[in-house]
Amino acid sequence: MYKQEEVKKHGKDAERIWVTYKDGVYDVTDFIPMHPGGDKILLAAGAAVDPFWALYSQHKTEEVLEILEGYRIGRLDVKDVPKAEPDAFSNDPERHPALLVRNAKPFNAESPPSLLTDHFYTPNELFFVRNHLPVPDIKTEDHRLTVETLNGKTLDLSVDELKKKYKSYTIGSVIQCAGNRRADMNQYKKVQGLMWEGTAISNAEWTGVRLRDLLADAGIDIFDDKIKHVHFEGSDVDPTGTPYGASIPIEKARGNEVIVAYHMNGVDIPRDHGAPLRVIVPGNVGARQVKWLRKIIVSEKESDSHWQQKDYRAFSPAVNMGDELKWDTVPSIQEYPVQCAICTPSPNTKVDRDDGTVDISGYAWSGGGRGIIRIEISVDGGETWSSCEMEQEEKQDLEHMYAWTLFRTEVKIPPGVKEFNIIAKAVDRSYNTQPETASGIWNVRGLIHNAWHRIPIIVKD
Amino acid sequence: MYKQEEVKKHGKDAERIWVTYKDGVYDVTDFIPMHPGGDKILLAAGAAVDPFWALYSQHKTEEVLEILEGYRIGRLDVKDVPKAEPDAFSNDPERHPALLVRNAKPFNAESPPSLLTDHFYTPNELFFVRNHLPVPDIKTEDHRLTVETLNGKTLDLSVDELKKKYKSYTIGSVIQCAGNRRADMNQYKKVQGLMWEGTAISNAEWTGVRLRDLLADAGIDIFDDKIKHVHFEGSDVDPTGTPYGASIPIEKARGNEVIVAYHMNGVDIPRDHGAPLRVIVPGNVGARQVKWLRKIIVSEKESDSHWQQKDYRAFSPAVNMGDELKWDTVPSIQEYPVQCAICTPSPNTKVDRDDGTVDISGYAWSGGGRGIIRIEISVDGGETWSSCEMEQEEKQDLEHMYAWTLFRTEVKIPPGVKEFNIIAKAVDRSYNTQPETASGIWNVRGLIHNAWHRIPIIVKD
Repeated sequence: MYKQEEVKKHGKDAERIWVTYKDGVYDVTDFIPMHPGGDKILLAAGAAVDPFWALYSQHKTEEVLEILEGYRIGRLDVKDVPKAEPDAFSNDPERHPALLVRNAKPFNAESPPSLLTDHFYTPNELFFVRNHLPVPDIKTEDHRLTVETLNGKTLDLSVDELKKKYKSYTIGSVIQCAGNRRADMNQYKKVQGLMWEGTAISNAEWTGVRLRDLLADAGIDIFDDKIKHVHFEGSDVDPTGTPYGASIPIEKARGNEVIVAYHMNGVDIPRDHGAPLRVIVPGNVGARQVKWLRKIIVSEKESDSHWQQKDYRAFSPAVNMGDELKWDTVPSIQEYPVQCAICTPSPNTKVDRDDGTVDISGYAWSGGGRGIIRIEISVDGGETWSSCEMEQEEKQDLEHMYAWTLFRTEVKIPPGVKEFNIIAKAVDRSYNTQPETASGIWNVRGLIHNAWHRIPIIVKD
Repeated sequence: MYKQEEVKKHGKDAERIWVTYKDGVYDVTDFIPMHPGGDKILLAAGAAVDPFWALYSQHKTEEVLEILEGYRIGRLDVKDVPKAEPDAFSNDPERHPALLVRNAKPFNAESPPSLLTDHFYTPNELFFVRNHLPVPDIKTEDHRLTVETLNGKTLDLSVDELKKKYKSYTIGSVIQCAGNRRADMNQYKKVQGLMWEGTAISNAEWTGVRLRDLLADAGIDIFDDKIKHVHFEGSDVDPTGTPYGASIPIEKARGNEVIVAYHMNGVDIPRDHGAPLRVIVPGNVGARQVKWLRKIIVSEKESDSHWQQKDYRAFSPAVNMGDELKWDTVPSIQEYPVQCAICTPSPNTKVDRDDGTVDISGYAWSGGGRGIIRIEISVDGGETWSSCEMEQEEKQDLEHMYAWTLFRTEVKIPPGVKEFNIIAKAVDRSYNTQPETASGIWNVRGLIHNAWHRIPIIVKD
């Protein structure tokens, strides 16, 4: 990787953009397409552009190398890369510099909004990261997954056995943090938690084996009345040795869609996303899609994990900061409600009145496989609306849509205003919609904020 | 039944209330409990109170008859009941006079809001009625239900065979018209359709046989890739002989909950509600729960019935009155979004400031079996909220809650105001909520209005 330090050392013109490519350093300024508002350039300002360059497969050809050859300006020495001091997180993996870090240790970072809608399936290195603990460093060949029945009987599998023994399935499925858009809710009224903006969400194609096939092979009857929940335990542990854990209702495990995945977008799941195994629970909140999966247990009860019992439950707006939190009065979040957010332009973008229009892109998604049936935009506070062009996963129908919907549209700059809000909202297959503001959904932990998304725009006359 | 004409003929004091009971006429004024605001008395004003009296089983005892004996004031003669002229609807059944008629022919009527929350399961005679055509008059012993496979092969059953051949199941399930609360949306902006207020919804216990058992017996594999939908055809026909019809996705038919019902609250389904057979599709809109069911067909396509293709689809607010309606751009309504409404007090109720509080009751419900996790009330426009006591079906869990949730609470009359709104809204198991106003959900046909429900209250100092 080409570090900021080296860019400085090379002492090159700060207005130019370089990439390292097959051990050379190239000036690619003239090859980088400008996004409206220059967002992509902005993200790389002061740091290397290499990771952005690498996202686009059309760059990875011999023809491009030939073109670049004429622009070569030097060679790198890896010895110059500085080393960090070790701590509990020092063995965490390298991350893409475009990720917007909300917390360094444990690592929590959003996908860059200006890049998110460029890809229907988010590139692994740009996929948002929500870690609760240091990232385990697991040798795939040493990893075991166990499946425990009500009687404690155990099925024990290596990753290789899991791959060979069961039929594999691939499914496009979103993962969204329950805290996505918390910062937005915090603007309405103060809440507690990591201040996620609007891109603690990403979409990937996952490949793995069906959970219900594993359960059946372990001798578990998923229609047994005594089984109400399926627990998942990760390999990530806190200083007391307690692992991350969560559970889902057995009903969900009976479906076709829940898989124990080993591939993310066609390659081994990266360390930050659960290598070597992660349970994918399409349509549910991220917190139940346990990474570094090492144990599956069926039970009459929900997981007693902290993250199932004392977190990821959204209280009533009647419960205020400082009130006692009666966790057992509120069900754990499983399916997500309908969500929608604008990714570009970014808030407070300045537009020229002479441009006439503003290009908009964003995403929408709903839990439980409820496909998005439309996305609407308003620039007059919700008085009038226009519909957007939508991009959806063709292999999924509206009743089983676990991948997201990307949208693009353009709106006319309203006449006679110096600033205005672009508002976006979606409707899902069950005709669920989003509330106008956080007024009715505000909760002390700032969870599942899905009010209309508003982007303020400044008009230059 | 004791008719208005006879009350007049008897020339009795209009301030008193009588019932007919075991062929006598009794003055029961002192036995009728007063509801807050006197709603129950108001409903009976100028007409017979008998149907209301009969709703409460505690009235149907020998003890009550004994008490009433001292109040007997006369005997009735049925010859005095006037007869109506015949037309296409003249063979429609008798209805309870408390029903709020929105259209006489075909008959469409709401349940009286002041009585609705008195019963967890709505008494059959108060269950709202949504008819599209005249009510068929079917002799149960002559009725046949046919089930057709993709190859046209047919299973043909009498009602008696259906009852004897398959296991019976009972399920509490709401039926709600897609137009419920349309009048409310019409206040925001004009819409087309029957002006339903907030009680085109009721809850009953249905008993029947599982749809999937019938399909299996007809030799249909519900996991066959070629089967995408299940069609239902009623016995109610228009003047051209075309029956009412609708369909549901096959996915829904695979569940435990869809039944072909013959009992409604423990008795034969009344004529207005589909005698002798009605398909109950718990969690879906009323329009798919076809009454007077005579045919079930599996298919690759949705039903081509008018009511599936050119009705019961909610357009975008971008589509205005007079615009061309492109029906195939919008999916047919199946699952309902989360809904909530206040039943008592009624709009513009006058309350005394000295009372200090106002008692509130209402219902909430969501589609897809998503149970209601809470209901909140605000009297300050949504700034602050309080939670309500909820009554739910104990046999149903939050993941499979097809019956509704009734709620009761009291709110303090806000100081220093001459009028205020009581606002109610609900949250379902997937944390879906309701929009503040119709602004984002308005649609030209006024369907599935589920904005916060507001009841204006007048304060007398």
